[in-house]
Amino acid sequence: MKKTKESNSKLKIIPLGGLEQIGMNITAFEYEDSIIVVDCGLSFPEDDMLGIDLVIPDISYLKENEDKVKGFFITHGHEDHIGAIPYVIKEINVPIYATKLTIGIIEHKLKEHELLSKVKRKVVKYGQHINLGNFRVEFIKTNHSIQDAAALAIYSPAGVVVHTGDFKVDYTPVFGDAIDLARFGELGKKGVLALMCDSTNAERPGSTMSEKTVGLALDSIFEENKEHRIIVATFASNVDRVQQIINIANKYGRRVCVEGRSMVNIISTATELGYLAVPENVLVDIDEIKNYPDEKTVIITTGSQGESMAALSRMAAGIHRKITIKPNDTIVLSSTPIPGNEKNVSKIINELSMKGADVIFQDVHVSGHACQEDIKLIYSLVRPKYAIPVHGEYRHLKAQANIAHSLGIDKDDIFILSSGDVLELDDEGAAVTGRVNTGAVYVDGLGVGDVGNIVLRDRQHLAEEGIIIVVMTMDTASGQIVAGPDIVSRGFVYVRGSEDLMEEANQVLQDTVYKIEDSNITDWGKIKTMIKDDLGDFVWKETKRKPMIIPIIMEI
Amino acid sequence: MKKTKESNSKLKIIPLGGLEQIGMNITAFEYEDSIIVVDCGLSFPEDDMLGIDLVIPDISYLKENEDKVKGFFITHGHEDHIGAIPYVIKEINVPIYATKLTIGIIEHKLKEHELLSKVKRKVVKYGQHINLGNFRVEFIKTNHSIQDAAALAIYSPAGVVVHTGDFKVDYTPVFGDAIDLARFGELGKKGVLALMCDSTNAERPGSTMSEKTVGLALDSIFEENKEHRIIVATFASNVDRVQQIINIANKYGRRVCVEGRSMVNIISTATELGYLAVPENVLVDIDEIKNYPDEKTVIITTGSQGESMAALSRMAAGIHRKITIKPNDTIVLSSTPIPGNEKNVSKIINELSMKGADVIFQDVHVSGHACQEDIKLIYSLVRPKYAIPVHGEYRHLKAQANIAHSLGIDKDDIFILSSGDVLELDDEGAAVTGRVNTGAVYVDGLGVGDVGNIVLRDRQHLAEEGIIIVVMTMDTASGQIVAGPDIVSRGFVYVRGSEDLMEEANQVLQDTVYKIEDSNITDWGKIKTMIKDDLGDFVWKETKRKPMIIPIIMEI
Repeated sequence: MKKTKESNSKLKIIPLGGLEQIGMNITAFEYEDSIIVVDCGLSFPEDDMLGIDLVIPDISYLKENEDKVKGFFITHGHEDHIGAIPYVIKEINVPIYATKLTIGIIEHKLKEHELLSKVKRKVVKYGQHINLGNFRVEFIKTNHSIQDAAALAIYSPAGVVVHTGDFKVDYTPVFGDAIDLARFGELGKKGVLALMCDSTNAERPGSTMSEKTVGLALDSIFEENKEHRIIVATFASNVDRVQQIINIANKYGRRVCVEGRSMVNIISTATELGYLAVPENVLVDIDEIKNYPDEKTVIITTGSQGESMAALSRMAAGIHRKITIKPNDTIVLSSTPIPGNEKNVSKIINELSMKGADVIFQDVHVSGHACQEDIKLIYSLVRPKYAIPVHGEYRHLKAQANIAHSLGIDKDDIFILSSGDVLELDDEGAAVTGRVNTGAVYVDGLGVGDVGNIVLRDRQHLAEEGIIIVVMTMDTASGQIVAGPDIVSRGFVYVRGSEDLMEEANQVLQDTVYKIEDSNITDWGKIKTMIKDDLGDFVWKETKRKPMIIPIIMEI
Repeated sequence: MKKTKESNSKLKIIPLGGLEQIGMNITAFEYEDSIIVVDCGLSFPEDDMLGIDLVIPDISYLKENEDKVKGFFITHGHEDHIGAIPYVIKEINVPIYATKLTIGIIEHKLKEHELLSKVKRKVVKYGQHINLGNFRVEFIKTNHSIQDAAALAIYSPAGVVVHTGDFKVDYTPVFGDAIDLARFGELGKKGVLALMCDSTNAERPGSTMSEKTVGLALDSIFEENKEHRIIVATFASNVDRVQQIINIANKYGRRVCVEGRSMVNIISTATELGYLAVPENVLVDIDEIKNYPDEKTVIITTGSQGESMAALSRMAAGIHRKITIKPNDTIVLSSTPIPGNEKNVSKIINELSMKGADVIFQDVHVSGHACQEDIKLIYSLVRPKYAIPVHGEYRHLKAQANIAHSLGIDKDDIFILSSGDVLELDDEGAAVTGRVNTGAVYVDGLGVGDVGNIVLRDRQHLAEEGIIIVVMTMDTASGQIVAGPDIVSRGFVYVRGSEDLMEEANQVLQDTVYKIEDSNITDWGKIKTMIKDDLGDFVWKETKRKPMIIPIIMEI
């Protein structure tokens, strides 16, 4: 870290995603000529982003300040913290710093994008400090629903910022140590400028239960279902959950097979790096599982969120190539629906129940995020001057702001930042002093950013009302229409009376054509508008619908 | 009721909607030459029913047996029990029987559809029996989240069926009497063939709390927010909730204004019929509320489910014409999100919080449906031979089936019916013996049933991938293409490189045209297929997208 203590510069904290794009976690920390970036996540499309595959952050601010950007610090390996890396790193190629498992997961992603050889990665240990430009960054052990999660202490000449990442307090974790609360306390004693704390569960009272409680719940399910095949669906990245299922299966003498591409991938990465310990002869291939009696097997699968392409959905729909649900199966959804997925999860529960399976979905999951009492604990240890709630919707950030205030932090010292806000801070004060350009970039197929709002508006219109195409060929010399108007429609009407309607529509267009020819109108713009208006009025009157109308005039 | 006791006929129970179309509650009861129908509800469209406004039942079975159909019995005034009446009654015009408020709400609906003078309605009192053909139907008092809900005892020569409708057990209702549990017991003592019981909350342990507990919660919110304007959003049809809000407002000396069309409608119907008692000088018009200090006012509004056109959504988005949310407002969402509405509700909580309002949404609602212990109570009173769980998704029906089994009913005597299943039953036995045609009819604008699955599939395709239209004009005499091919696209790509892409696409089409002309292909089907294939391959290769491609060939 350069010595710039005498300088009057302030630290700038700039979220480039987040509040307006939930999941797209990416925050720039800037001090004089240095920028470091914490996390680089993606969002999944909202319902109105039709046809969009992924949403990634607009990083034009980083591009404009490319020479300042020193590196990315990643708190953990979930998509909303690492998913945009392959896209962003193509634009800003700087080193990536993270713990071992997180780097392992990132490397898998980079491989898929054929970027592995082009990007520098560095594995960081808890307690280790990384110096980059004006910054020093320390990794601190936390707990979360994925292993190797870290909080960051970000040291700058303007002061220290503690960023929790996503975290929970787990005193009895399945793997590794509990969160390093003592270090949070030590930092607090030395003086922390700002705390950026996970708000996801800030509306929930109490404390988040230990991952180990899920193991106990699963154990009793295994105990009670000794006659049945057991299928457990959970998040692929929750390696501790998978570890517990494997241990319990082993205890009850069952063989385990793993299904779903992301589950297989993460298990292989986790095993390779030493985060998952599988007893010998427990794992069997999906093609071999049929050689064991049902009641001696367990299938661990993806799809606990009802994702339509995931393994569990395919089993539920009866289209899985290798696994058929049977009336005696016990199926455990070891998860809670993420907001927005409730209906899809319910659909799967219905489908599995219809096949006669017993579906267990209550009390077999714990959250990976800190609840209110845990958040209070962190605040009480860190005792920051400023509170900057992060991770969650506005309601969650607001809930944490209320907690922070209840702990004695002045309302003026609590900042809920929008994407692009530039918060300048030091010991003397903190204020939002400006804004930078941010936003969402849509990824659709191979296209990054080529689908914008106009295309989405058109898709919405097409989706709700369909399209009517009117084509005619005009002889430019004579101004006469020599072919058409012909009408083609899609997504508009199909059965009963629609042919009559189209015949009548044709009649309406004939009248329009006569009008055009009679008045010698040759301006194409005018002709198109007349067709749109006349046909649109007719269709609205007859059906109370407003399909997209596209007039196409060809000339010969 | 005709005397046909000597006959060996069985009673038929045929759900014409329900399990496959949640909300579309409509069940036919058939005995020899008589059919009566219980409820006539509609569904709201699923996410994949693009552009559809409403979904109503296919009643072709009733049409085919028109001369048998004697009347509709409606259990209560919610949309999922009455919503399809205006559509169905146009096809099958028979009398409608229901309690007073329910008839009042139905009449409002019929008025909107200009059907009031054409349909016979009869107000029925609790305890009253209606004789229709082979059936006698008794209305029994229940509680629900709307007043005047009824269970039905349906007497047929084959035995008595008790249908609970939607219900809860409320020992201390806000208005009127508690559920007539004694009558359920009396019927049970005499012998009940089958119980059709509400399953909505069959997964929830315990008992459903009284509506009055919401009053207590609201009272303490009023007590704690004496300095703030209070806005309460709830379901329009929950008149008891509205009554409690008005009473509490009056107690605290506040004026009340009501906002949202459905809220205004139902309050006027309920007041007119004596189900809502508003103290004098409490209600004020929305234009006058500004004459009172904020802390002396309450606004009751629709939109608690985040419905995008409802009053609360418009307030949250800052586009309500008369009400502007202020930082000191206290806003109460007295409701729970219906599955599928979670994200919309969350959006509103976020928007209102961003405007500085305090949003309260926890512990200010109770369900209108019976939980597990309440369901057990009804089974224990009615002691039916057969259990036919109704109302809810498969998972809920299954949960009730488990409850029924735990109370000693044989698994073979429990029936989870699909739409169209014909369950034949009498004292000797019960079995599904056949199926009738049922299904969902889509209402889109003025069109009833003219949008089918092909149209929806096209809309889905258009929504996700957009459309590319290729037009060309062909001289039929020479087989030469004299104009085009021209390309028009919508919902495909807009920015960056899309012009280049379209130029290249045009080049691809030119090659196709040369191929066509060279090989003297004049079959239009073949030409269209070649265009689709060549252009489709090109677009997939370049973008990994599959827009709908429509080739249009005009001839001169």
